Amino acid sequence: MKEWSRTRRAEGHNIGLVPTMGYLHEGHLSLMHRARFENQRVVASIFVNPTQFGRNEDLSTYPRDLVSDSIKCRQAGVDAIFVPGADDVYGPQFQTYVEVEQVSSPLCGKSRPGHFRGVATVVLKLFNVVCPTSAYFGAKDYQQLQVIRTMVRDLDLDVNVVDCPTVREPDGLAMSSRNSYLSSREREQAVCLYQALHIAGELFGSGEKEPRKYITAMSGRIDKEPDAKSDYISLVHPETLEDLKQVDDRCLAVLAVRIGKTRLIDNRLFQGRAGHA
Amino acid sequence: MKEWSRTRRAEGHNIGLVPTMGYLHEGHLSLMHRARFENQRVVASIFVNPTQFGRNEDLSTYPRDLVSDSIKCRQAGVDAIFVPGADDVYGPQFQTYVEVEQVSSPLCGKSRPGHFRGVATVVLKLFNVVCPTSAYFGAKDYQQLQVIRTMVRDLDLDVNVVDCPTVREPDGLAMSSRNSYLSSREREQAVCLYQALHIAGELFGSGEKEPRKYITAMSGRIDKEPDAKSDYISLVHPETLEDLKQVDDRCLAVLAVRIGKTRLIDNRLFQGRAGHA
Repeated sequence: MKEWSRTRRAEGHNIGLVPTMGYLHEGHLSLMHRARFENQRVVASIFVNPTQFGRNEDLSTYPRDLVSDSIKCRQAGVDAIFVPGADDVYGPQFQTYVEVEQVSSPLCGKSRPGHFRGVATVVLKLFNVVCPTSAYFGAKDYQQLQVIRTMVRDLDLDVNVVDCPTVREPDGLAMSSRNSYLSSREREQAVCLYQALHIAGELFGSGEKEPRKYITAMSGRIDKEPDAKSDYISLVHPETLEDLKQVDDRCLAVLAVRIGKTRLIDNRLFQGRAGHA
Repeated sequence: MKEWSRTRRAEGHNIGLVPTMGYLHEGHLSLMHRARFENQRVVASIFVNPTQFGRNEDLSTYPRDLVSDSIKCRQAGVDAIFVPGADDVYGPQFQTYVEVEQVSSPLCGKSRPGHFRGVATVVLKLFNVVCPTSAYFGAKDYQQLQVIRTMVRDLDLDVNVVDCPTVREPDGLAMSSRNSYLSSREREQAVCLYQALHIAGELFGSGEKEPRKYITAMSGRIDKEPDAKSDYISLVHPETLEDLKQVDDRCLAVLAVRIGKTRLIDNRLFQGRAGHA
């Protein structure tokens, strides 16, 4: 992979990287299409990264389908698929980790200790191997995006981080490989994340400034579903991810909800002066 | 700096980087000469890195002399001196650190918590800015060298890490910018580090296998000096830096000693089967 990418870069080509954990859905494909449009070469990596899973999380059951993924990558115009083995990425003496401190701490960082350390570390390694000019990430994983942006800034990396809009099912559920865990009953209930964000959007549109009001309204929607249990529901600053004391002209509504055993996340960015419509 | 180095690399030139904290001595110059010999372009960085100093350490008093350093760099054939300001290296929101876990823990890692985190982070940043093909480090800072080697391996960096032998004063004292802190009385006593390592070398030559014997002999030598107080004295594995239970064919004798208020370090690598001479 290093040889391939260095040869391409030496020829003056730019490279777009789409890092994934595979089991590709329309969200991933939208990243690939964007990368295809903006670069001479496109690399998709497929790696279910063990260091970003907690001990009691779903590493062993995470869905995999490399054959189908390869076909989808080819159809999306990807030039090279990088599928390293876990032993290639993490040798027996591996011991080096990247910590992005503040933006990794709240939200998913609280529920999943070590998760963003694993994400930052593997993404830096992918950057060093694939040598991309740009890398593409979905806005659904908003905190991940902020962690990577912060790492790129702080470590002086020469990679353009591109965020792409969340792709959704017709009813609004954000696309995720983990949606495949849902039973049909759970799948119906899973729309509550999107609908809770919609309710927050209406409050923002009405000029509501009190974060507590948003959170109560969103919780109310989640609690209507018998198999839904919220992990967190927050209104945060879009850059620092710190809880807002008052909603002003920019805010991010963000939530993580368990539907049965499946943990789903979603978010929505609100911009424009609340109450000045 | 980024533009300069990327232009040179694009022209196919290799770049040797000598990272320093300035106040250059013969040890630094030997790194520059080696880099000059092996590369088309040589960059020396001068940066007293705040993140590798502890709260009660000598950041504010660390010796600086940029004028003299510039002349020395020029005489050593350095093409570019990179002297970033602390605010350029660490912006107000800076929050990303590299942790090299195991090899950072013992020895200086114990006495100076956070020190190697600061070293690894700044060296990675320097690598990302200067884009060197090779980087040159002195063997006096053996643990630092192991931290950097491990980081380069674990993060898939394309930098050749070159270690260069410790340069010593005529009496054996390892060159260090911190030697300038020593009073003439302390300077005389400071030779005890080198002499303690010499005693360890004689034990190794005699086939001694018991680490305790080495440590006792080395401590004995340090304790002879009225102003010397050892921080650690150890016999460790040259790669893992773990304490040895038995001395075999490779071992590193390593020590840190305070002479008055000045903390000095030194080490010596022993190779060849002890007791099979």
